Amino acid sequence: MKNASIIVIGNEILSGRTQDINSNYLAKRLSSIGVLLKEIRVIPDEKSKIIEVVSIEAKKANLVFTSGGIGPTHDDITADSVAEAFNLKIELREDAINELAKNYPNGRKDLNDARLRMARVPEGSELIKNKISGAPGFRINNVYVMAGVPVIFKSMVDSVVENIGHSRPFISRSLRIYKAESFISEQLRNISLKYNDVQIGSYPFKDNEKIGVEILVRHTDNEYVQKVLNEIEISLNVPETS
Amino acid sequence: MKNASIIVIGNEILSGRTQDINSNYLAKRLSSIGVLLKEIRVIPDEKSKIIEVVSIEAKKANLVFTSGGIGPTHDDITADSVAEAFNLKIELREDAINELAKNYPNGRKDLNDARLRMARVPEGSELIKNKISGAPGFRINNVYVMAGVPVIFKSMVDSVVENIGHSRPFISRSLRIYKAESFISEQLRNISLKYNDVQIGSYPFKDNEKIGVEILVRHTDNEYVQKVLNEIEISLNVPETS
Repeated sequence: MKNASIIVIGNEILSGRTQDINSNYLAKRLSSIGVLLKEIRVIPDEKSKIIEVVSIEAKKANLVFTSGGIGPTHDDITADSVAEAFNLKIELREDAINELAKNYPNGRKDLNDARLRMARVPEGSELIKNKISGAPGFRINNVYVMAGVPVIFKSMVDSVVENIGHSRPFISRSLRIYKAESFISEQLRNISLKYNDVQIGSYPFKDNEKIGVEILVRHTDNEYVQKVLNEIEISLNVPETS
Repeated sequence: MKNASIIVIGNEILSGRTQDINSNYLAKRLSSIGVLLKEIRVIPDEKSKIIEVVSIEAKKANLVFTSGGIGPTHDDITADSVAEAFNLKIELREDAINELAKNYPNGRKDLNDARLRMARVPEGSELIKNKISGAPGFRINNVYVMAGVPVIFKSMVDSVVENIGHSRPFISRSLRIYKAESFISEQLRNISLKYNDVQIGSYPFKDNEKIGVEILVRHTDNEYVQKVLNEIEISLNVPETS
């Protein structure tokens, strides 16, 4: 089973100005192809920090996805930082220029220096198509570098996820019971110790003033999820499933 | 100026099941009291990982805030992990039991073993009030441990933030211009090099098919923000501010 990290690059998330929705979108997509997301890190637009975190995550995770910092302005430093993290040169690429040019009325004639910055990628990169505004993302080694604007990010994720190669999706099944969390915690602990390769989460809820717990079982093996859920059901002596 | 890290603990965020909204709430509050948020990390409900990340962040940041994993069930391991990160014993605390007991019709009689788990904190901790459901958070050294349920998290943040001691809030002012980002990037780069102690962000937008850029200047010194913004305005030759 592959695992992954997401790195969100952007001062606007850390200042609270913008709510990050990209990592939730990608998290769901990774679940659907059975890739285990191990961590999300939101970091500032600082070159040294991007280099540090990309270097660490690229070694730890099978797949790394970044969001943000690939536009034309001074705070768009992701491509340079990722190149430096891998000790690679950054180069202006013909195929990236072509992708970019498609987006402007006069094609390549409209590409000033600032726009051309968006066609610079670390040597050896594979481009990631941008169906929305032309400026491509790229993959270098196990790192996928994508735009921060949500509509572009999503479109890039969709094209990338298809090519990662499907493994079995994660299956989540849940059981809602109308008891306080503290009344079921011992049984739940015993089952989670017995099945320690399954994710078992418990999430308290309030439903018209009635309190309860949603118990969630998550694994790529559907039958196994059902087996664990059945055992929880029996041990807690509750009939209703959802 | 103080800086901070947020650690969000929860498989439900990494699986994509839940959109994290806690860190955006806290990010805004930190901005309002002039604390610079350096990083947000979302990590799984795994003891070794919580210990590792809390240890790292507690050394790097002045203030660390965690969200999640302080309920009564098997996946609520934050308190134990934080104690271990600081090499401290965890203890059942009288004042925490009292806080917890207030929440139940029969007071202390209603506290079974699972519920009592929520009154265990690392030795030397200061409790953080939970006005919603009784089970307290805690502060140990520079780490503030709070609940994951958003309504409880927010209430804990509000009580904690008051006591951190106000410094000057961050002031963000912005300028909206209806030009393509690539046409202003050189001037913007020059200004950002000149004022490298100010955060200057540029965020493209689309407004009724007209494209533009919002330029954001952020610092704790209001007059300084205004000065930089004026200079950007002049160098870009745009009259309208927002």
